[in-house]
This record gives sequence, structure tokens and C-alpha cells, in this order.
Amino acid sequence: MSITVVGSVAFDTVETPAGRSERSLAGAATYFSLSASFFTDIRVIAVVGEDFGSAEQAVFDAHRIDTRGIERAPGKSFFWQGSYLDNINEAKTLRTDLNVFAGFEPKIPAAYADSDFLFLANIDPVLQRQVRESMPNVKLVAGDTMNYWIKDHRPALLEVLKGLDVLLINDTEARMLTGNNNLVQAARGVMAFGPRFLVVKHGEYGATLFYGSGKGKTGEQSFRAPALPLEQVVDPTGAGDSFAGGFFGYLASQPELTPGAFRRAMFYGSVMGSFACERFGTERLQQLTRSEIDERFHVFRQLTHLD
Amino acid sequence: MSITVVGSVAFDTVETPAGRSERSLAGAATYFSLSASFFTDIRVIAVVGEDFGSAEQAVFDAHRIDTRGIERAPGKSFFWQGSYLDNINEAKTLRTDLNVFAGFEPKIPAAYADSDFLFLANIDPVLQRQVRESMPNVKLVAGDTMNYWIKDHRPALLEVLKGLDVLLINDTEARMLTGNNNLVQAARGVMAFGPRFLVVKHGEYGATLFYGSGKGKTGEQSFRAPALPLEQVVDPTGAGDSFAGGFFGYLASQPELTPGAFRRAMFYGSVMGSFACERFGTERLQQLTRSEIDERFHVFRQLTHLD
Repeated sequence: MSITVVGSVAFDTVETPAGRSERSLAGAATYFSLSASFFTDIRVIAVVGEDFGSAEQAVFDAHRIDTRGIERAPGKSFFWQGSYLDNINEAKTLRTDLNVFAGFEPKIPAAYADSDFLFLANIDPVLQRQVRESMPNVKLVAGDTMNYWIKDHRPALLEVLKGLDVLLINDTEARMLTGNNNLVQAARGVMAFGPRFLVVKHGEYGATLFYGSGKGKTGEQSFRAPALPLEQVVDPTGAGDSFAGGFFGYLASQPELTPGAFRRAMFYGSVMGSFACERFGTERLQQLTRSEIDERFHVFRQLTHLD
Repeated sequence: MSITVVGSVAFDTVETPAGRSERSLAGAATYFSLSASFFTDIRVIAVVGEDFGSAEQAVFDAHRIDTRGIERAPGKSFFWQGSYLDNINEAKTLRTDLNVFAGFEPKIPAAYADSDFLFLANIDPVLQRQVRESMPNVKLVAGDTMNYWIKDHRPALLEVLKGLDVLLINDTEARMLTGNNNLVQAARGVMAFGPRFLVVKHGEYGATLFYGSGKGKTGEQSFRAPALPLEQVVDPTGAGDSFAGGFFGYLASQPELTPGAFRRAMFYGSVMGSFACERFGTERLQQLTRSEIDERFHVFRQLTHLD
């Protein structure tokens, strides 16, 4: 099955204790697409500037990602600069240049209309909703968001949540969305806004999937996947989008959306998130092979299973 | 097999968003003993004051815990008062009265000499070492410590670590002990001090067991158990000691210390930690049954296993 993703394709400059990476190919839609491309067919909707050249196009082509929905606009691509020198788990934003992204109006190629799944990466909820409404026939819609939209664009975001099957956010975002510090109560609050499935990411500690009404016994209707204890986090940028790509890409590859498929999807999400952190930017995802992914899936099983 | 534990038997006054508990039976050795008593025979070494009466004795008796090593001294028992009103995950200490604990000199009853396992709960490392050296024939020694001993009593603590097979600490303590913020590197640093097994607790996110040389591939030689997503944490006091009791108690109940036994021990640790948080003080552990424990073990399996 195919996934259409809408989000940013960007360039990032990042400093971490492991070094510095200058203007490398990044953006939520890029991380998501590369990660999900190991599992299923991916189609991207984004906007880039004149600095997106043949080298960048080649990265998408090498993963057979459909880029007909990537609009080329005059000017420069979205640029972000961040530092993890103080805290490897939290980026300090040093600079954000929206550039061509400021006027982004998602245009959906006719060839994308038969997509099975839709992923709304972290962009303005007004645009997320437009894309959602333009693709009424998709079978499953997942989305991401961030603190900025939760805080200052709440009504628009709540409209998006109504149309989502799956929301992927982190602890802080779940708590901000509901004003509730207890994870289980916050999860129930978020799911009351719309999503039937909620993935809450806990950074280096893994992620929890909540499903069902939440009215069962303690611990039922949830599933926890760990993160891999990594000896060196080179660059955590894009780990969440890579998680989403592994999670949603794996789901799209499955004949049926059983509880077992969702559980394995959580593991594939964690697997792809762990790879993303091992090198700067999208470098590790670009060089990854499917057999490395399956090998690491096995490591995750050993890390968590009793037998 | 039997476990001897040395540590505090105390009274706590605790406030949390769920309410307040006044001078209830607590202390690391109490939480550990009650928790471990569901798995094996427990013997306690501690000191209490005249406020430790028949009601408190009855709690130990009901769990067939050997209290011949609990010395009765003139004066009052160790008292701690703490608040979780600001942060349910971190206690603010409002008052600590050492009382009879200030002059604690552990005395080991002759009847304890044939104990198989030894647990050194969080007390002065000088006392931990004394007890360790007085029981040279035990097969496995585990211990706990805290930030205060790491910061201000490092040489004495390092002597204790040399004699430990298993150390149980939290993230912050692992990082303080080694000055390393990366969990995997910190774990390797701690294990270089002595312990062959290291359990690092991550609060509401679970715990990681490290074993082996740490020189294997990424993710090998470690095991992650989640914490149960709890809808209400009534009182987190003693969750770590209850984890230790479940973990070490289960190990002591096993005929062989296989990797599988350690993995299941991590789950039983998490199970007992989750129960401890459900009511104030040791209340939940006092009323617990073995069948509730096994039922929750099954919930943990569902929470983490793919099939």
C-alpha cells in the first residue's frame, strides 16, 4: 500500500557533542519518507527552493520515493539551525528561515489520489486539515504536531485531531494538549479529541501506544516499546519523524491492521528512530539496508522479551 | 533460598496530590522485605525505637519475615517527612530525624549466618561494607545507594561496590557516579567499579539491566523492563525498594541464575514497584496476594511482547 506524506523538506545545520553538520538534507517529510520507504511506496507533498538540486533529488530517487508533489519555488528551502551542545535530548533552536515554506500551499498530484494511507507531518494545522480533506478516500490517517501549534493554534489543531486515526506526539506535548501530568490520563484526554490510536514518545526511554477506550484494567490497551540504549547519540534530529516512518510504513505494508501489526509497528518505529540518531542528519537512513533493519528488530526483541 | 537485608525501618509522613499519610510504617528495609517476602524467606537487620510496637511487628509477622535482627533501642525510630505536591516523580524532603538510626551498629544474629543472598539497602556505605564482610558465605550480594553517599562518601562507597554482584540505582545516580551523561557509557563505568549486574531505574519509564562486559554489539547484554502506565500514582515512596525486593526475591527463588531468571526478575521488580505506588506507604504491599502478583506479571508481558 502507498503512503502520501505532507511536510517539510529542508536543510539543517546542527551541532552536537559529536560534531557539526552543515546545511544537510533534512525536514520532517524527508526523514519520514526515507524511513518509511524501506517498507512501502511513498509519495511526498512539500515545497523546496532553488538550493534543492540534483544531489538532493537523487536521495529520494534512490529510495524510489515519488516526488511529483515536491513543488520547486523561487528562493531558498526551509532552513533550521540547532544545537544539542547543552542537552543531547533537547535542541536549542539558533535560527529558523521559513523561506519558500512561508507561502506553502500543498498541491496534491492527481497520481496521489489513490493513496491508501496519509501522514500529516508537523506543519501548520490549517494545511494539515486542507490535505486531509483533499484526500477523503485514504484508509488510515496519522499525524504529528509540536508545542508551538498546541500553544498558539489550538482550535485549528483540534480540528485536525478530529480527522486523525493515529497521533504521534511526545510526553510534553501530550501533557500540554490536556493540561494533565499523568500519562494515562493525558492519553485518554488526547484520544477524546479524535485519534483512536495514540503514540507517546519518551525520547531515550521508548514509546507507548495507547489504543481502545482506555476503560480496561490497568496496563491493558497499551503497549510499550523501548528505545535502544545507544552508546553514542550523534544527532537526535529527525528521530521522531524516523520513528513515525518506521511505524506507519510497516503498518502500510501489512495485509491487516491487527493488534499484532500495531505492536510490531511500534518496534519498527523504535528501530528506525535508533538508526536516525547514529549519524548526522539523514545520513544513516540514506545508507541503511533492509537486512540491517531486520537484524535490529531482532535486537529489540531480545532487549524486551522474556524467552 | 533466604535473603538477609540490612537497612532502615522507619516511619514516614508523606503528602502527595492524592492525600496525606501520617507516621506510617516505612523505610527501605521494610519495603524491600515485604516485597521480597512473596518470593522467598527474608531476614532483616535494622534498629527501631520504642514507637515500633506490636502493630508494626505484626506486619512483619504476617509475611513470615524474620525480625530477630531488628534491634530495639531507647528513643524513637528513624522518621522522614516528604512532599510530592510539586512533582510526583521527586520527593522534597521536609524533615529527617535519624533518632535511633544515628547510632546504628548492625548486629547479625547467628541464625542469619547461613543466608544465601544479601541485600544492602541504602545506608551509610561504611555499614554496608561491615555487613558484607560479616557474611562472607553469601552467594549473591546486591545493593542500593543514593546521591548523598555518591557525592560526599565516594571512597567508602567505591569499597562497597567492589563487593557487590548487583547494584540497583537510578539514572541520575549512574550519571553522578561516573560523570557521564550517556546511559550506556555510564553503565559501563559503574560496572568497572565492581558489580557484574547493574539495574538502572528510569522512574515511570521502567528500568534497564546491564550485564556482561558491555563490549558486545549495540543492545546486546542489556534488557529493558517497562514501568506500568498507572492512572494514579498515590505515593511513589518505596517504589525503588519494592522493585529491588521483587527483583532480588524472585532471583532467590530460582534454582539457577540464568539470563532468563534475571529477565523475569526485572519484570517482577517492575510489578512490585507498580503495586507500591498504588496506595500510601507500605499499605498496598501489606494487602497484596501472590495471585495478584502473577496476574500483573501477565499484564507486563502483554504490555511488552509482540506475540
